[in-house]
Amino acid sequence: MKLIISKQLLIAIFGGKSPGNGSRPENEWKMNDYVKRIAAVRGMMLNHGWDALVLSGSDPHSSEYVSSRDQQIKWLTGYTGEGQLVLTQDHCGIWTDSRYFILASRELPLSGSVLHKTRVPGEVTIPKWLSEYSAGRGPFVVAVDSLCHGASEVGEIIDALGDGGRVFGIPDILDSLWTDRPEIPRTPIITLGTEQVGWSRTQKLSWLRRWLRERNLDAILLTALDEIAWTLNVRGNDVDYNPVVMSYLLVTEGDATWFVRKGLPDDDDSETVDSFEELAMDGVSIRNYSEVSASLAALADGDSISSIFIDPSTLNFKLEQALADEDSLLRVVRGDSPVILRKAVKNEVEKAFMREAHLEDGIAMERFLHWLETSVQSGEPVNERDAADKLHEFRSCIEGFRGESFETISAYGANAALPHYVTPEEGSDEIFPKGLYLCDSGGQYLFGTTDITRTVPLGPCTPLEMEDYTLVLKGHIDLAKATFPKGTAGCQIDAVARQPLWNSMRNFGHGTGHGIGFYLNVHEGPLQIRQNFNRQAILPGMITSDEPGIYREGRWGIRHENLLLAVEAGSNDFAAWMRFETLTLCHFDTSAVVKELLDASEIKWLNDYNERVYRTLAPRLEPEVAQWLRLKTLPL
Amino acid sequence: MKLIISKQLLIAIFGGKSPGNGSRPENEWKMNDYVKRIAAVRGMMLNHGWDALVLSGSDPHSSEYVSSRDQQIKWLTGYTGEGQLVLTQDHCGIWTDSRYFILASRELPLSGSVLHKTRVPGEVTIPKWLSEYSAGRGPFVVAVDSLCHGASEVGEIIDALGDGGRVFGIPDILDSLWTDRPEIPRTPIITLGTEQVGWSRTQKLSWLRRWLRERNLDAILLTALDEIAWTLNVRGNDVDYNPVVMSYLLVTEGDATWFVRKGLPDDDDSETVDSFEELAMDGVSIRNYSEVSASLAALADGDSISSIFIDPSTLNFKLEQALADEDSLLRVVRGDSPVILRKAVKNEVEKAFMREAHLEDGIAMERFLHWLETSVQSGEPVNERDAADKLHEFRSCIEGFRGESFETISAYGANAALPHYVTPEEGSDEIFPKGLYLCDSGGQYLFGTTDITRTVPLGPCTPLEMEDYTLVLKGHIDLAKATFPKGTAGCQIDAVARQPLWNSMRNFGHGTGHGIGFYLNVHEGPLQIRQNFNRQAILPGMITSDEPGIYREGRWGIRHENLLLAVEAGSNDFAAWMRFETLTLCHFDTSAVVKELLDASEIKWLNDYNERVYRTLAPRLEPEVAQWLRLKTLPL
Repeated sequence: MKLIISKQLLIAIFGGKSPGNGSRPENEWKMNDYVKRIAAVRGMMLNHGWDALVLSGSDPHSSEYVSSRDQQIKWLTGYTGEGQLVLTQDHCGIWTDSRYFILASRELPLSGSVLHKTRVPGEVTIPKWLSEYSAGRGPFVVAVDSLCHGASEVGEIIDALGDGGRVFGIPDILDSLWTDRPEIPRTPIITLGTEQVGWSRTQKLSWLRRWLRERNLDAILLTALDEIAWTLNVRGNDVDYNPVVMSYLLVTEGDATWFVRKGLPDDDDSETVDSFEELAMDGVSIRNYSEVSASLAALADGDSISSIFIDPSTLNFKLEQALADEDSLLRVVRGDSPVILRKAVKNEVEKAFMREAHLEDGIAMERFLHWLETSVQSGEPVNERDAADKLHEFRSCIEGFRGESFETISAYGANAALPHYVTPEEGSDEIFPKGLYLCDSGGQYLFGTTDITRTVPLGPCTPLEMEDYTLVLKGHIDLAKATFPKGTAGCQIDAVARQPLWNSMRNFGHGTGHGIGFYLNVHEGPLQIRQNFNRQAILPGMITSDEPGIYREGRWGIRHENLLLAVEAGSNDFAAWMRFETLTLCHFDTSAVVKELLDASEIKWLNDYNERVYRTLAPRLEPEVAQWLRLKTLPL
Repeated sequence: MKLIISKQLLIAIFGGKSPGNGSRPENEWKMNDYVKRIAAVRGMMLNHGWDALVLSGSDPHSSEYVSSRDQQIKWLTGYTGEGQLVLTQDHCGIWTDSRYFILASRELPLSGSVLHKTRVPGEVTIPKWLSEYSAGRGPFVVAVDSLCHGASEVGEIIDALGDGGRVFGIPDILDSLWTDRPEIPRTPIITLGTEQVGWSRTQKLSWLRRWLRERNLDAILLTALDEIAWTLNVRGNDVDYNPVVMSYLLVTEGDATWFVRKGLPDDDDSETVDSFEELAMDGVSIRNYSEVSASLAALADGDSISSIFIDPSTLNFKLEQALADEDSLLRVVRGDSPVILRKAVKNEVEKAFMREAHLEDGIAMERFLHWLETSVQSGEPVNERDAADKLHEFRSCIEGFRGESFETISAYGANAALPHYVTPEEGSDEIFPKGLYLCDSGGQYLFGTTDITRTVPLGPCTPLEMEDYTLVLKGHIDLAKATFPKGTAGCQIDAVARQPLWNSMRNFGHGTGHGIGFYLNVHEGPLQIRQNFNRQAILPGMITSDEPGIYREGRWGIRHENLLLAVEAGSNDFAAWMRFETLTLCHFDTSAVVKELLDASEIKWLNDYNERVYRTLAPRLEPEVAQWLRLKTLPL
């Protein structure tokens, strides 16, 4: 489709100025695809009388990672980070947090978009911005993609606009312009047995039905992809890095209906056909993914059920409208899905396999770090992409490896200052035997999920690099070895990891820890260790990352990350206690440590940890790597 | 008034058993005053058809400390700590937090009352308890003292009971039985000048009126006594330790009406008469305290004003009913009083005087600690009360001293394990040259308020005493020397003070820090450093205590407390920073410190602090005390 752009529209886009900052010479500016697409969308908005378009950056399931089909903001603006977009005739804004500030400063000029910082003091949220922008402009119409926008988020916009605004939800809103938009993904579906996950799908469905009965509810609609995968013990590969299946799950006392696939089950690959058969034997009916909307509208008649539970944080606006239509006879009860918490507390089988996954992953990591150091120091040309590929190669040797749990961040020097740096496929920076290299990566295994960051000195480091390296490690260690009373929430111990940085007036703009799934999403709720006032207590069996960092733009970035399992630590007169068991097995390089900045208990933790890594992994490593690891793990 | 108690009622009181725990011999139980009073109240409840009576333990202003008139729970049960009471025909429960658990275990058996722990996991609040208790009992009637019960709290009970219950508010509910109840206090009222507090009352009233205009409101009713004292720059002594005046303040655009005193102003002492004249010149009308209710009812006509702002957390239920009557034409807007935050952020004059107050207070403290140590070690008989009296004597020498800011806790040995130990007037325990003595005290001065706890070794200490002493001090120091980003709330750094204790599986059941007034209440909001999810950021100019502790029942108690002033600490690429300036000036005894438990930065803080204390105070101390202090403050 060829686009014709009027001069008026171009002026509307940039207010008569070229995109980007003022210092960019006029002649450098070219009419790129993104500028054309934005202009076309603005044309569509004018035609329909929409004053603003809001894109959530998510998919119909409020997923954090989305398939290429749902990367609408990337298609429209070229911005590759996480974020939300608001487009009006005179403004294209992208809302994102500090992880992406540097990336945004590089990519937003492409489309003339403006960065709106989130999670900062004085933050102006999208609903607030729209409310301020629309003030005094008369009736204000906001359009959203009703499929790819969460019901809660749309509700916030509606509330913020009040009587002065209207919000229209249109499914697949950009489809008429995005002619080569990818299809809904459709990857093979596998099932996991009780011996792999500890709890069968019939047990999980029974638990869910008991939960419904206790609340006098007839049905629950699960909309978050990882919750569905957990409940049904299924895995797919529909979203990069997340082993999930694009689907909805409706559970009632008598039925469990899985809305999945565009085609019929018998069109599918044999693995999927087998999976569907197994599910059918457990009483799960398979229906077409696209039928969910009509099915819910039918339920709203109130004939078969009279009440349904939904989680508006992952239900999309379109389905919410189908259920909460004013003619609906259903009692719609909203809240946090019970699956979130249950899934976060790992059972004994899951814990045992997660330990196993970290042992295997640690072997790959040590082989990788050995290869990297020896290659770089011997003068072999290695770039960031080579390193990521090599790490993939080592992980691929592990039986049950199913791919990375997120895109590997392989970042040398100043690139590591971007906490979510995307290593280019082509032309990535070369790694030299000097300064720090950061690698944040993880694997998906049939028996678990890993997430690890190591920042390693590949040669001489400056005193400030070493100080930063040590203070981040100090924060990491302080959290890893912390004891805390049962009932403590993440925001109440976040400062434990930050205090060493704060006391030297350094900080990092992301959370200290996130929950992680069992062969599922690398980020999962409800546990978070960060500054926000999340009241969720850290429960025994939850797994969290511990990943403080320091980022100096244009210089270097440092992050040290292990996964920690929360465990009970006994009771006494003062409290019932909790502590963490470190799952990750990969040494921390001590050559960049400024020993004086650590106290005796921190040095002991570091030496003990490195010794444990050596003793556990060495027997499984090649003699050359084991020998190298012995030297790397000598006590500080 | 003589009480006749039926056998049925006695059985109703104790369910046929004697009060206290089962091990108490039957013959030790005597029908004391409290048992008689409870029986009489139960009789009244039966007469009126009240199923439960709830006493808030507070006064008509939701004050934390109350005059003897409002100590209804003490009169009824003999329990002297803070708490709330629920009385039914078969249960007398007292709800209180861990500060009072040990005290409650001693005092509750007196009246056969049962302890309900608050601020503990699984806490059952009074509304929840009432809701559970009343379930299945048919229509349930709860009576509250409408004057001495906050509107918010009553609202929570009403919500919890739902349709199954009714709540009656009766002012002075116990008056018919409590025949010798004290009068409403009436102490001399003084005024403070701008040179003393930095901001005149006309400035404060203008600020309050601007605040009203910005919100399109006509009036605000101030009900918290310290907010009124702050706004009018007045002080009294109506409540022990709190220099406040029993009153209400109604501010409109044109008027400021102070409801105060039972009698007419011209009946008063000359100081008060002068104060009233000064206030009148600033446009403040004086009306009778008892007229507030009728005045508010008249306002509800909506003739003079059409909207009013109230803070339901300190407004009593009776006045709330007067305002929010269903016939009321007033728009009643509820929220946190703006005075709370404004009062908490001290201005330059207040900060300068607070520093001065702590210098004076520090001199008294050092004289006291010198006297205590030399007296006890020379074998002179000194008991806890003697010590408290001596400290009072030293403080009394300070010009502008107006009394203690709370009842001095002078506690030796195991008594210190009660965080809020009340030192008996007669027969308090003797202090020996062995183990630890704890003194938590503070002064009210015309130029500030202090609050300090020192725990001092008076002779040999056990290794565990020394370890506890050091870990508490470590937590204290870690908070005192913390740097943190602007915007950080108290619950986000509470762990900084607790971490050294947590890591050795020790903890304390009270908050780490509370706000403090300027020649006002020793506890004030909105700043708190504790585990609860209070979002209030620590702002420059706020003052907080820093008082971690350890309490081992039957053995010892340790608490180290200084007051800290929050100050800005500059900005850099990472954040805008805050830190604390320690206001309190009194050395920490290093002889009980286990040096190995402190890191280098903590030892430096301790040595620097003690040196600063010595250099600042020594020139003002008697040579003998200065010499002693020199030895006490030598570097560790």
